[in-house]
Amino acid sequence: MKRTASPLEAPAAAVEPTSGGTRPLRIGVAGLGTVGCGVLELLATNAALLARRAGRPFAVAAVSARDRRRRRAVDVGAFPWRDNPLDLADPGAVDIVVELIGGADGPALALARASLARGLSFVTANKALIAHHGAELAILAEQSGAALRFEAAVAGGIPIVKTVKEGLAANRIDRLHGILNGTANFILSRMEETGAPFAEALAEAQRKGYAEADPSFDIDGVDTAHKTAILASLAFGVPPDMTALTVEGVRHVTDVDIAYARELGYRIKLLGIARLADGRLDQRVHACLVEETEALARVRGAANAIEVHGDFAGPTVIEGLGAGAGPTASAVVADLIEIARGNKGSTFSMPASRLTPLDAVPAAERRGRFYVRLRVVDRIGVMAEIAIALRDSGVSVERLIQRAREDDGSVHLILTTHETSEGAMRGVIESFTAIEAVLDPPLMLRIEPI
Amino acid sequence: MKRTASPLEAPAAAVEPTSGGTRPLRIGVAGLGTVGCGVLELLATNAALLARRAGRPFAVAAVSARDRRRRRAVDVGAFPWRDNPLDLADPGAVDIVVELIGGADGPALALARASLARGLSFVTANKALIAHHGAELAILAEQSGAALRFEAAVAGGIPIVKTVKEGLAANRIDRLHGILNGTANFILSRMEETGAPFAEALAEAQRKGYAEADPSFDIDGVDTAHKTAILASLAFGVPPDMTALTVEGVRHVTDVDIAYARELGYRIKLLGIARLADGRLDQRVHACLVEETEALARVRGAANAIEVHGDFAGPTVIEGLGAGAGPTASAVVADLIEIARGNKGSTFSMPASRLTPLDAVPAAERRGRFYVRLRVVDRIGVMAEIAIALRDSGVSVERLIQRAREDDGSVHLILTTHETSEGAMRGVIESFTAIEAVLDPPLMLRIEPI
Repeated sequence: MKRTASPLEAPAAAVEPTSGGTRPLRIGVAGLGTVGCGVLELLATNAALLARRAGRPFAVAAVSARDRRRRRAVDVGAFPWRDNPLDLADPGAVDIVVELIGGADGPALALARASLARGLSFVTANKALIAHHGAELAILAEQSGAALRFEAAVAGGIPIVKTVKEGLAANRIDRLHGILNGTANFILSRMEETGAPFAEALAEAQRKGYAEADPSFDIDGVDTAHKTAILASLAFGVPPDMTALTVEGVRHVTDVDIAYARELGYRIKLLGIARLADGRLDQRVHACLVEETEALARVRGAANAIEVHGDFAGPTVIEGLGAGAGPTASAVVADLIEIARGNKGSTFSMPASRLTPLDAVPAAERRGRFYVRLRVVDRIGVMAEIAIALRDSGVSVERLIQRAREDDGSVHLILTTHETSEGAMRGVIESFTAIEAVLDPPLMLRIEPI
Repeated sequence: MKRTASPLEAPAAAVEPTSGGTRPLRIGVAGLGTVGCGVLELLATNAALLARRAGRPFAVAAVSARDRRRRRAVDVGAFPWRDNPLDLADPGAVDIVVELIGGADGPALALARASLARGLSFVTANKALIAHHGAELAILAEQSGAALRFEAAVAGGIPIVKTVKEGLAANRIDRLHGILNGTANFILSRMEETGAPFAEALAEAQRKGYAEADPSFDIDGVDTAHKTAILASLAFGVPPDMTALTVEGVRHVTDVDIAYARELGYRIKLLGIARLADGRLDQRVHACLVEETEALARVRGAANAIEVHGDFAGPTVIEGLGAGAGPTASAVVADLIEIARGNKGSTFSMPASRLTPLDAVPAAERRGRFYVRLRVVDRIGVMAEIAIALRDSGVSVERLIQRAREDDGSVHLILTTHETSEGAMRGVIESFTAIEAVLDPPLMLRIEPI
């Protein structure tokens, strides 16, 4: 990423002369953390280019954040300040409100409602807000004629919202899945590269600034779930619905799993998955085994990537940087340009009133292949007990690995199954757990795609 | 790709009831080959979905092709027929003209001019037309207020036009490069997988329908050049300019090169490249060595992929199907949906009047690393002559491979250089050619990225 090394001329965007007599589009920015400063930096650095592409210049008309005096990457002293972010929703001073506060509720939601109700266009990077309140806000936007845009809410610099909503709009999409959280992917990649256990890879991610002090949103799958709910809405015409998602994270994935998965020809990735099955919708987030030849298996480090399957376009894969000031600012400002160009369109891929929920696939009915890791006492008869449990649940084993025993007399037993239902697998895991020789709770991971 | 197996109900799109009283958008289709039939099939198969997403239904109001009676994948008998494609440019009967005839000039150009002059929006898959006449047509479109869209002209089902023009619009793009021709990539992939010589891989591509009887547009780089000129216009704000491009194809790449490249950690790919260097623009098409760890090196078979570098977004890679009826129809109909939604925007990433040519980087000044293959007589002193030629041109060798001699007493000598200029390399190649012991004309390929 190339950046201007010189001190930021923050006021440049504000005083950019109008082009061909066109009045600047007045931007109000709420939230001046990493991303907010990235947006201000982008607007200043590329001001002339943006005016050419958008047809008119942007001017930062007002900013708001919790702490005015905090040290920031950008000098915000030249911009008109509002202590209360809600004061940005002022049609007399602002044309577009950019919300970078975060959080599903609180000031972000209040600002969205106030802006859209007053006919101000609203651009946000806030996935929680859109995943929880997207349908309500879209209706507000359509009533007032304002634009509501959120390209930055999913996969940062990757224009996946636009790709699903517009680029692939001619297709009946039957599934999409993506690596949507760079923190989790960084941790899993490091475990694979170095053999480090989870805790060590997490600590490294924290040292490098990829993971926060409290990493639970990233590693427990919540962040990926927000993004998956948004993509599912765009792809399948449903309202975003967090309650429809099954969410698991990556905390339970061990270095042992990474190594065995690799031996079996897989990588372990945290995926957000949404797919149609017989007219019902299956939405979930979990760590799963991905065949090493798949495009997503090769995505390393903090990158993001999404694969979308359309009935006419076939598979499309898009990969890039999913987080950070630069990529997120790129997405936020792309939305500003679209609004400047007059490309309002619907908030989702159709008017909000036409979004229609689909029945969810009950978890027990989901079909797939599975990976199971067991640690068992190495004695005669254990394998028979395991085989019987599988037989009784009607689950067929594809591959089985057993290694020489550890010092403590236990052995790891790794198996993958042929296609079966999650209900059947739950039965298998219960039976395994009841076997006395099984030492730890068994771990089950899904294999994607089936 | 999932398709309806039942006979196509082609008239379905034509009689689709209006949704909410919205009049159908009337489409005129010129050219009913593979892609034209794909568009008709998509409009029929996904009619209800398209109406929901576009806000109104599409109706095929008229079609035109050279031969009405030709056997086609779709029954076109139910659509109003025009013998002369120019008759589609009729505002009384048609809202949007879809041009799938092909060719930079002739009826395609005449139809584009007539449609746009009469205020009819124009959607095309014709890369030659846009590469040669895009700026002129964009001005026509902007004068009449019609939309001119060409998502299908570059990389079929991959929405790369939209990605560069809109998704990454906030970025100063400094380079892009892509695998833009599936035929050439299929041939190079097969050579790599099977060790087959070029002619054999080409024959296989022809048998499988990936290459035409006369494959020159694909394998000589012309098709890739059209697409590169279009992407360069979108990324750098220049008018598309075929005269600014250096174009080489893949005919001269041998199985020997594929094998040595692999040994050195590279794949050979036909790339379209456009990059800024000190405010000048370098546009070219050639086979080159790509490090095997690069995203584009892993693109196999007839797929397409493009990598774009933005100053804030960083690198974005998008991969998918670049040709064929389904992917191309997906792109054409995406353009129709955008027009139905009222997203007109400029034809390129800014109004055509603001497109500004950039100076070209003279070929001799281009910098890069290079691969050279020589066949030489295996006798004392040859290596010294070669080393002296390199020294005299100031070119520094990175790696050198010499193998045991062949039955005819010759040996292959493969070398890669450190960064240097193409001018210096041209001097080296001239000196090599003058050495008596050098048996064949030396082959030089570029290594990308530098």
